[in-house]
Amino acid sequence: MECVFCKIAKKEFPCYKVYEDKNFLAFLDIRPLNKGHTLVIPKKHYRWIWDVEEIALYFKVVKKVANAIRKAFKTEWVVSLIIGEAVPHAHVWLVPRFENDGHPKGWLDINNVKKISEKEMREIADNIKKYL
Amino acid sequence: MECVFCKIAKKEFPCYKVYEDKNFLAFLDIRPLNKGHTLVIPKKHYRWIWDVEEIALYFKVVKKVANAIRKAFKTEWVVSLIIGEAVPHAHVWLVPRFENDGHPKGWLDINNVKKISEKEMREIADNIKKYL
Repeated sequence: MECVFCKIAKKEFPCYKVYEDKNFLAFLDIRPLNKGHTLVIPKKHYRWIWDVEEIALYFKVVKKVANAIRKAFKTEWVVSLIIGEAVPHAHVWLVPRFENDGHPKGWLDINNVKKISEKEMREIADNIKKYL
Repeated sequence: MECVFCKIAKKEFPCYKVYEDKNFLAFLDIRPLNKGHTLVIPKKHYRWIWDVEEIALYFKVVKKVANAIRKAFKTEWVVSLIIGEAVPHAHVWLVPRFENDGHPKGWLDINNVKKISEKEMREIADNIKKYL
């Protein structure tokens, strides 16, 4: 079966889109560790992030999206994780942190997934997009 | 007290150096989650990574170091975390992963810090440097 992120990049699967350009796409994670948890992916398939050729361009986009999340959620603090195991397509996690967000100090609880309605997911994506 | 990473960047504190250029420095984490766990920092002080002006250059260096770690440890799989809480100076973690390395699937156990002698830390840094 084809990679799920390739399908999202080709619009064959839906997503709560936050940002898109020729090479990259950012959308909300459907298992958010906090409101605003966003994935940034290259549209081209790479198994591992350290193989992405356009790495400089990629992290310009990641920074742009991270700063939009900071403004949308009024927090300085956006952590990033690049694990690459759950979906074998290069991706960067951006997770805004808040006081008393249920995650431990200096770390994230991977099982602390927030329940957010579809309506609110759309509102969150729209809110981040305002700053992009 | 001045920031510890600024002191390392200014050579006022020692480190197991892996890479250095005009703007960036990479060195081994002294609380390694695996052998080869490396930090990449901008020499200039930034509190948060998403404020780093030279973000494109920064992640070119991060990619270069990540790929050297892959070669040095013969693993494809180098995860990256950007948390920013423990030391208030922008930094990127690079942690190579291995089969049966004591970390959970798709995640890291923050308390699983490996004991590595000073001699071996120097050998690890030298080994990574060979590929840079």
